[in-house]
Amino acid sequence: MQHQSQPLTGNASAADQMVLRRHNLGLVLRHIRDLGPHSRAKIATSTGLNKATVSSLVSELSERGLVRDGSLERGNVGRPGHTIELDGATVCGIGAEVNVNHVEVLALDLRGTVVAEKRSSLDTARLDPDEVLDRLAQLIHEATDEVLARDARTVGLTLGVAGLVDRGAGVLAVGPNLGWHDVPVADLVHQRLDRPAYPLLVDNEANLAAMAEAAALPEGDRADVLVLVGEAGVGGGIISGGRLLRGAQGFAGEIGHMRVDPQGRRCGCGRTGCWETVAGLRALLSAAADPDDPIQDPALGLEDRLAELNRRAELGDARTLAALHQVGGWVGRGAATLVNVLNPRVLVLGGYFAVVGGWMLDGIRDELAAGSIAPRAGDCRVELSTLGFTAAVRGGAQVALDSVFTDPTQVPRRSADRSADLMEGATR
Amino acid sequence: MQHQSQPLTGNASAADQMVLRRHNLGLVLRHIRDLGPHSRAKIATSTGLNKATVSSLVSELSERGLVRDGSLERGNVGRPGHTIELDGATVCGIGAEVNVNHVEVLALDLRGTVVAEKRSSLDTARLDPDEVLDRLAQLIHEATDEVLARDARTVGLTLGVAGLVDRGAGVLAVGPNLGWHDVPVADLVHQRLDRPAYPLLVDNEANLAAMAEAAALPEGDRADVLVLVGEAGVGGGIISGGRLLRGAQGFAGEIGHMRVDPQGRRCGCGRTGCWETVAGLRALLSAAADPDDPIQDPALGLEDRLAELNRRAELGDARTLAALHQVGGWVGRGAATLVNVLNPRVLVLGGYFAVVGGWMLDGIRDELAAGSIAPRAGDCRVELSTLGFTAAVRGGAQVALDSVFTDPTQVPRRSADRSADLMEGATR
Repeated sequence: MQHQSQPLTGNASAADQMVLRRHNLGLVLRHIRDLGPHSRAKIATSTGLNKATVSSLVSELSERGLVRDGSLERGNVGRPGHTIELDGATVCGIGAEVNVNHVEVLALDLRGTVVAEKRSSLDTARLDPDEVLDRLAQLIHEATDEVLARDARTVGLTLGVAGLVDRGAGVLAVGPNLGWHDVPVADLVHQRLDRPAYPLLVDNEANLAAMAEAAALPEGDRADVLVLVGEAGVGGGIISGGRLLRGAQGFAGEIGHMRVDPQGRRCGCGRTGCWETVAGLRALLSAAADPDDPIQDPALGLEDRLAELNRRAELGDARTLAALHQVGGWVGRGAATLVNVLNPRVLVLGGYFAVVGGWMLDGIRDELAAGSIAPRAGDCRVELSTLGFTAAVRGGAQVALDSVFTDPTQVPRRSADRSADLMEGATR
Repeated sequence: MQHQSQPLTGNASAADQMVLRRHNLGLVLRHIRDLGPHSRAKIATSTGLNKATVSSLVSELSERGLVRDGSLERGNVGRPGHTIELDGATVCGIGAEVNVNHVEVLALDLRGTVVAEKRSSLDTARLDPDEVLDRLAQLIHEATDEVLARDARTVGLTLGVAGLVDRGAGVLAVGPNLGWHDVPVADLVHQRLDRPAYPLLVDNEANLAAMAEAAALPEGDRADVLVLVGEAGVGGGIISGGRLLRGAQGFAGEIGHMRVDPQGRRCGCGRTGCWETVAGLRALLSAAADPDDPIQDPALGLEDRLAELNRRAELGDARTLAALHQVGGWVGRGAATLVNVLNPRVLVLGGYFAVVGGWMLDGIRDELAAGSIAPRAGDCRVELSTLGFTAAVRGGAQVALDSVFTDPTQVPRRSADRSADLMEGATR
């Protein structure tokens, strides 16, 4: 999202030429990612590179398996040509997530196709980090095996965790809902994967979810997006002016602990009246059902419990509908504060909100309009996520793939790849 | 703040050469503004331009009156040389502000020296926009006359108003504390100034204050700054990742209407429990004194009333101290929400907070630490503004001067200036 988007041109030494070539390969590849399939001529026009250069760059990207010919495009003048579209089936990024309710791993190829998806329901807050990360590493192994079985390579892994992440050190500093403090997650996962060659990053899961959600929006709506992720807690990812808002230490977006109800409940973090005490999953479930109701049983999968909640709402169950209405109101009141502060174009409701949020939307929109100082909540659109619980792992996989869009030359040419394979075989 | 900071180099046509030259003149000028006086050799090293180019650029900037020789700098090797420092006494930007308590105008030269400062106490909310803007235009005339009297030129004017500003149209869409709606302030001021040649921009006053406050911080602290401006309302300006956070419509930073006290007071905006009902100036004054107390009299100057409040606090007046303590607590609780969301490096307290905030600081820091999910409030430093009520007009003047830092060629060379003056005289 922060890539330089101008072509580099001019006289240069041989070393500079390589940098230039790499930069322009990335420019063309990102262009096709962001704007969809285009003809060589259109790529030349909109990147400012000349046609011969674009043709040469596209050839190289094709040799590296990153783009391919798409449909025939018949222009107004000249011969019809093929559009160029993303390929990249041989290149995968992996997103992983440690959540209060589950651990999950997802592999995406360069086109965004899901190559592997693994999930285990886990009551992670009751286990110690070693046990949780053992289970996560096992899922990662399964996913990378599937990537390998497709003759594809893993170019990176990004792990999302809920809480304050020191990205430089790969440490979860504070994870209130997991109950983790100063856990060196990057090192612990790295060990369990036998120190893989690809880079491993750790980030806040709501930040990763926000990047995936923004990427899924129409291009004109991606610059100012607020993503609310409803889970045990309420996570926030903020995209403003086209960039993820991280803050001075990378701790921005901790919206779950805004104090919205000073007379309210005690939060897991020790404070009183935090937003997640009235808008988080526990608030909804405990308002909707008694403690011995199966929808409150963490041993059952969360998706099944939420499906049951939807079923009851559809049947018109008064307690369920009242709970959804009450929590929706709180979601809207907290969101109004954030909309006043951030003035987003789109508010995306992810996590459990995406599953049962249909019953909350009217209430959220009403509270948002009532609580926003800007007319019509600054024309902020409120939408349910279409990615749901997979947003964070998708975002993680996309971040892992970003390095290829920055430097496509890290993926070898197919011919070179083949002879490199032969070489490797000969020395085994 | 969003200027491109790389030098442009390479082969280019004559037109391109002019663009290149202008870009590099701006680059060097901004370099000296941001990093202080430097030798030509150091400017070359840190901009990446070669020494001969830097010397030529510096000569031209000097001919345009924008830089001058500073102190002698004796390096480790070679001859001692003069550092180059900002000059620009002949170039002024003007900031203006319409506030609930006053209208104000300030002219700054390129070095940041105050050339003119005009203020009128006005109960603006009781007057109609035409009367207020008449008074403002009069102050602007007085300021531009003083600029002219110094043989300097006005390069731009930026007007700050409290509320939601449509910058493109120059319209104050909603100004809750002024009671203004859809007022075309840019047009109305432009008419009153007889359509001056310099550009006139309108912006939210807290945004302008935030830019001035950030510019006054040490360089390493400027990227993530939250500025709270306490006046009748509470305004917010957010700088994140080195950029002003504006949001999709430019309405971000409306922090005064965060609902912090659902059981609380009715706000001027019609909602209940908005932050400014407990942290704004009215909340402090009404807690500190009875309605007939002179510190509640809007006819007296605000600075005198606040000075009286400080005097009472110093004398240990219990009611005054209790009021400052109570309001400080609310300031801290609201700030904690913003610190959780934004994770700023520095929180600057401006407006009335800057005048009486010394009595509030401990309470603010305590509530901030208690309410932040990040340890020690994410190491956020809390500081009283040193610019106080002049921050917005300073920011406005700086924004007006920005065009010179982008394109220094808009200021004529001194010799050319003189012959242009002669030409003009001959045709009159």
